[in-house]
Amino acid sequence: MNYGVIRFVMGWIIRVEGIFLLLPWFIGIIYKETSSRYFLLCAVVALIFGVFLTRKKPDKKSFYAREGFITVALGWIVMSFIGAMPFYLSGEIPSFIDAMFEIISGFTTTGASILSDVEALSKCMLFWRSFSHWLGGMGVLVFVLTILPMAGGESMYFMRAESPGPSVSKLVPKIRKTAKALYLIYIGLMMIEIFLLVIGKMPVFDAVCLSFGTAGTGGFGLLNSSIASYTLYQQIVITIFMMLFGVNFAFYFLILMKKPKEAFGIQEVRWYLGIYGTVSLLITLNLTLTGKEGFFTNLHQATFQAASVMTTTGYSTVNFDLWPEFSKLLLVVLMFIGACAGSTGGGIKVSRILIYLKTIKKELSYLVHPRSVKILRMDGKKIEHEVIRSANVFLCTYVIVFFLSMILISLDGFNYETNFTAVAATLNNIGPGLSAVGPAENFGGFSNLSKIVLSFDMLAGRLELFPMLLLFLPSTWKRK
Amino acid sequence: MNYGVIRFVMGWIIRVEGIFLLLPWFIGIIYKETSSRYFLLCAVVALIFGVFLTRKKPDKKSFYAREGFITVALGWIVMSFIGAMPFYLSGEIPSFIDAMFEIISGFTTTGASILSDVEALSKCMLFWRSFSHWLGGMGVLVFVLTILPMAGGESMYFMRAESPGPSVSKLVPKIRKTAKALYLIYIGLMMIEIFLLVIGKMPVFDAVCLSFGTAGTGGFGLLNSSIASYTLYQQIVITIFMMLFGVNFAFYFLILMKKPKEAFGIQEVRWYLGIYGTVSLLITLNLTLTGKEGFFTNLHQATFQAASVMTTTGYSTVNFDLWPEFSKLLLVVLMFIGACAGSTGGGIKVSRILIYLKTIKKELSYLVHPRSVKILRMDGKKIEHEVIRSANVFLCTYVIVFFLSMILISLDGFNYETNFTAVAATLNNIGPGLSAVGPAENFGGFSNLSKIVLSFDMLAGRLELFPMLLLFLPSTWKRK
Repeated sequence: MNYGVIRFVMGWIIRVEGIFLLLPWFIGIIYKETSSRYFLLCAVVALIFGVFLTRKKPDKKSFYAREGFITVALGWIVMSFIGAMPFYLSGEIPSFIDAMFEIISGFTTTGASILSDVEALSKCMLFWRSFSHWLGGMGVLVFVLTILPMAGGESMYFMRAESPGPSVSKLVPKIRKTAKALYLIYIGLMMIEIFLLVIGKMPVFDAVCLSFGTAGTGGFGLLNSSIASYTLYQQIVITIFMMLFGVNFAFYFLILMKKPKEAFGIQEVRWYLGIYGTVSLLITLNLTLTGKEGFFTNLHQATFQAASVMTTTGYSTVNFDLWPEFSKLLLVVLMFIGACAGSTGGGIKVSRILIYLKTIKKELSYLVHPRSVKILRMDGKKIEHEVIRSANVFLCTYVIVFFLSMILISLDGFNYETNFTAVAATLNNIGPGLSAVGPAENFGGFSNLSKIVLSFDMLAGRLELFPMLLLFLPSTWKRK
Repeated sequence: MNYGVIRFVMGWIIRVEGIFLLLPWFIGIIYKETSSRYFLLCAVVALIFGVFLTRKKPDKKSFYAREGFITVALGWIVMSFIGAMPFYLSGEIPSFIDAMFEIISGFTTTGASILSDVEALSKCMLFWRSFSHWLGGMGVLVFVLTILPMAGGESMYFMRAESPGPSVSKLVPKIRKTAKALYLIYIGLMMIEIFLLVIGKMPVFDAVCLSFGTAGTGGFGLLNSSIASYTLYQQIVITIFMMLFGVNFAFYFLILMKKPKEAFGIQEVRWYLGIYGTVSLLITLNLTLTGKEGFFTNLHQATFQAASVMTTTGYSTVNFDLWPEFSKLLLVVLMFIGACAGSTGGGIKVSRILIYLKTIKKELSYLVHPRSVKILRMDGKKIEHEVIRSANVFLCTYVIVFFLSMILISLDGFNYETNFTAVAATLNNIGPGLSAVGPAENFGGFSNLSKIVLSFDMLAGRLELFPMLLLFLPSTWKRK
């Protein structure tokens, strides 16, 4: 293990976070909040510590997949540790484990909260919560890479460990250039959202914070009622932008490169929209037939909630825990499907689901015609064996992590639906689940053990399982 | 598609079932029950129809995997159709869909019932219900094979479609000889169980019926309280035999061949016992710490219920729906793990779980040491790529069938736990689930649509998904 490089990168993460911690400090000064001084304190400590860790460059240059995965896993934990400090020190979240849960939920763009009264937080804390979504959305390490001069080989390992989806796309080789382009799209789309919300008469603070949450597909709101009390226009804008941030960013790349035909031809994007449309319609019908509100109100609620859950954002405009079982279950299924690979969203990802469906189809036709040879294709290109294998291992690991987590948190004695959706909502980085963790509830009722398990799940979900699991493998830590 | 062979085999299935239908008729005569005449009626009709279908041998000899799968899937449906008739015609189960559900539950060794009052059934009906477990346990088609002179090649295809577990073991080549040996073990063990129960003062009728259910890992009882009112000795005997019938039959093969070292070395059997022991202990501790009864009573209840659920039998001596969440969840996890491959039990099977764990371990060590080449082994032998691929496709298919079923039955408006465990209990061929389908409840409250979906799940679970799915693939039905 090359500890030198890990130390060096970790130092840079802390330095970058130190600078970002100054932002909520400014916000606190504007709103004249005393608790903002904790952000300054943490920023200064982080900067000093970060500079100390990066004072000399690592000697050895050897850096492989193992180092990449471990750096990413540790980086996210360290980042969360520092990010939790202002909550904890200011006393606005008195329990340290709660503060960790909250910021991990922020960085992993989950949006699950342990707070029963969000509105009691000061503005600077609310800003930091929402801003953590923005930071976590595109991957802090990818950001570090864009500013950090490094040999090049290691970048790919970070990217592989931190970016969502079954395979790192061909965008990778020119990684710094790519990362910059991705950030431009990310920031550009967010700016448009802020603009559209502000001209729709939303206060600028709200527009900025909610757009952070939309862009990172996070889900922390500013009000106890999440998005319910905003205007119809504002809710529709958020619906559209949630869906936009769940699209594979390769789509926007192709649009920018003026290849709209190829962009709209991406199979994953078509399925993403298809599944979304189908589920929204089914929920609308279910709500209308069971006598909830009128068709158009239901359509609006269904499209908002489906977009929020599928993109793993987690905003809500209605307490969908009160919906009929059929609609609730469709939302649960969307939780697992998740957004597109290469977006800021979580979940299993539409492209993996497509790979699974294609392998099943192939297996069935193989059973019917054993001598036929069929190659799996996506967007006209052959899906490499490596990608299929990795998608399969992902599913096995996912299921096992899922049930182990559920067993551990079941010790708290909540009902089955709560336990199941609590794990689903954290492992898929959504936010609210159903029953005792429904949109009108929070995660504060769980024991510390459960909060730690669910925090692990959020990190495991955001980093696609393996980096976090490697931390527990003894052979990871052996020197070569 | 070779329709000639399918017709011929189907005819034989019906003939064999016709003969077996005479058994409950005899039972009915002994107990002087008028409803037994429906068994005679069905037997005669089945025999006439069966002889008609088998009156001429099929012309073409071509018979491949496709024909094998379709014959098995259709065979089980036809078998259930005929088997449901006595329930329906006698009026003891007035709804035809209910009667189908009940007998499919029987043949697939599930043991889920739509009856709220089992004790109201006549003895001959109770016998037929339990006997259907015995028939379904080892696979009716394998039985047909042992009496039917056929070319030989097709036998393997039946075996592949009907036998549980990831791969057909090396026992297959001499298929008829093997099938006979398996039946001998099957009947032999069951005889011992009947003997032990009878000397423990259980009425012979009960001993025979409950042993049918244990041998087939079925779970239909004779009393509304399932096994709760039998003596401790009788319950312990059943516990032991449930576990014995969940063991891979290759184990007994090796014992009979005087290779005990190899027998006890089978990794799947060790894990099967290890998981069972661990879960039983955890449940015992959980029950004791939460203040239910004393340690030994809890140990007894835990070992019985864990054995019943893991082997997918489905008997109960206590209403485990009232247990704490932790214990309930452990039972749910056992539902999915299931018994050993090559046993009469259902579920995903311990050997598949082992394959998944091994692939995850391999993936993790591959991430740490990318240049290492590791071969997956089970019992010292390399696991073929084909087996791993098929286990992976199984899991994908399993998850998708699971959630689609759950969505469909959620229209009935039952709670999440009910919907989840109703599908888990049918797709894994267990019987009772939790909440509204708990051990003290039944499946009678579901709509006809849900009953059809769950019946499909029972068949899909018993035949390991693909034969049933092929029925819906248009290309299956194309002539070459």
